[in-house]
Amino acid sequence: MAAVSEIRGGTAPSQKVPDLAAIEAAARRLAGQAVVTPLLESHDLNARVGGRVLIKPETLQRTGSFKFRGAFNKISQLPRGSSVVAFSSGNHAQGVAAAAQILGLPAVIVMPGDAPAIKIANTRSYGAEVVFYDRHRDDREKVAAGLAAERKASLVRPYDDPDIIAGQGTIGLEIAQQCRALGVTPEVVASPCGGGGLIAGCATALRALLPEVRIHSVEPQGFDDTARSLQTHTRLGNQPGATSICDALMAPSPGELTFAINDRLLAGGCAVSDREVQAAMAYAFRALKLVIEPGGSVALAAALTGKLDLRGRVAVIICSGGNVDPGTFAQALAVES
Amino acid sequence: MAAVSEIRGGTAPSQKVPDLAAIEAAARRLAGQAVVTPLLESHDLNARVGGRVLIKPETLQRTGSFKFRGAFNKISQLPRGSSVVAFSSGNHAQGVAAAAQILGLPAVIVMPGDAPAIKIANTRSYGAEVVFYDRHRDDREKVAAGLAAERKASLVRPYDDPDIIAGQGTIGLEIAQQCRALGVTPEVVASPCGGGGLIAGCATALRALLPEVRIHSVEPQGFDDTARSLQTHTRLGNQPGATSICDALMAPSPGELTFAINDRLLAGGCAVSDREVQAAMAYAFRALKLVIEPGGSVALAAALTGKLDLRGRVAVIICSGGNVDPGTFAQALAVES
Repeated sequence: MAAVSEIRGGTAPSQKVPDLAAIEAAARRLAGQAVVTPLLESHDLNARVGGRVLIKPETLQRTGSFKFRGAFNKISQLPRGSSVVAFSSGNHAQGVAAAAQILGLPAVIVMPGDAPAIKIANTRSYGAEVVFYDRHRDDREKVAAGLAAERKASLVRPYDDPDIIAGQGTIGLEIAQQCRALGVTPEVVASPCGGGGLIAGCATALRALLPEVRIHSVEPQGFDDTARSLQTHTRLGNQPGATSICDALMAPSPGELTFAINDRLLAGGCAVSDREVQAAMAYAFRALKLVIEPGGSVALAAALTGKLDLRGRVAVIICSGGNVDPGTFAQALAVES
Repeated sequence: MAAVSEIRGGTAPSQKVPDLAAIEAAARRLAGQAVVTPLLESHDLNARVGGRVLIKPETLQRTGSFKFRGAFNKISQLPRGSSVVAFSSGNHAQGVAAAAQILGLPAVIVMPGDAPAIKIANTRSYGAEVVFYDRHRDDREKVAAGLAAERKASLVRPYDDPDIIAGQGTIGLEIAQQCRALGVTPEVVASPCGGGGLIAGCATALRALLPEVRIHSVEPQGFDDTARSLQTHTRLGNQPGATSICDALMAPSPGELTFAINDRLLAGGCAVSDREVQAAMAYAFRALKLVIEPGGSVALAAALTGKLDLRGRVAVIICSGGNVDPGTFAQALAVES
């Protein structure tokens, strides 16, 4: 894939980079609100990749994805009487809506009209107002910024925000703590990557606690902006018009703040095809008994295909979300894994 | 439903009743072989039932169901050079096949010709020989006993065996330990029930460690032999010709040994319909992100329908297995929950 437009040269972000202390503070805010998701192990998966794999299933998180962590960490620090606006294809929408509902704040969510029905329905179920935009025609950031100005609301960005990154980083903190409790030292951690907030937060916690760990981003083919940007140490965007079943991972380019972190802390990135994602979803159904959405399955897909070589290694694979419509799920099950 | 034929009067079983020490010994044999499945909590499920529910997902167990525990506990105590025969609709088959493979013993499994394809394929994948019988015409126990005699093999019964019950009881032991670690005291534990080995083992561990806990069996309608037997303190069989999508829970009557335990330790039982089971499977897909097979979902179904009243209570719900064919799963997702 050819490199596309460069976004910006420098790596000095305009916002503060969160550190381990910020992530530990987020963990304290999330205590009792977020699920401490377990580390799961499958003998079948270990045999298949020839290593030891621990799955971190954020599918089991409140709202069905990791996004609740960052949203709650951010919104719980807003002044009393605030209201919030967010733009999202669905998982951040649900995270923001649920966190706002718990904290008693009104929320407006800007979602693409073609978001999965389950994500739209769930967002509304948390009491949020949903405003649609056209993924191909409208600039979602502008729509959301306009709404935020009109309603005097705080814009809760999906990834390029220190409080969001710190919230997602609690996953990395838990991984380090849970591996220590198991008496294992992970050599590799692989995570799905859209705008890069999840992996930036995790990398911050993990590299602070386990300096030798190698952290890999996994993206859908056509949306491998982080992998290419890591190679050139420059933020690169994706080719316009690319498509993917991974609706959660279609950010146009790495975030400014997230890439500043990821460029420093990640070992590299790779990309998987829609068909590899479907095979991973089918494998998760058959062997792991987990419901994982397309975007949540990319790191597992990289492990199963060998694009991420885990032979003889101890690895943690993050499965970031499980909000998938029954029809999309059934299609994946029809793919031979 | 009318009471059916009485199986036998007395409650004094011909085999030794396992105790907490036998379950603790089983836990030591299973260490490093079986998965210590986590307790999962869902805010959505808590809100829905009006209580606090902890899910024990044996779907995440090796071979996709709890049956591995009992099978490994039993087979690991057989003399060197043994071989094994078992009859099973599928989950015990996989548990026995996997345990025998790990321990290096040949295994022959007698399965109904209409068992789910995933269970037949998985059983063969663990190296076992599969022999089919006709669920409506043949006596599976006789077929298996004949094969065992012919091949000088040990018959590994699915539930009516102290070592099998003790192995399944390690789930109850883990529930007690995990609840203690969480600082909660479960008031209710509900479990799927076929022949009664899972719930008999769990009840033995749980009532020893938490004497006040109320333990409920849940069965498919038409196969509620344990519920009816508990009411009359007499082993009763099911009406011939009953059907259910819960292929794992179609035992003809309570076991002699399991019922002697369950009659003493259980608080009662209830039954759920196929439609309620499908709704529970769909709920688990949508809200819990877990793949649960029909028979594994009955206790969750009892909680969701209110047949098990959990309002204001702390409860543990055992989801016993996840080996379901994609077509059966897709049909359940089509049911409104």
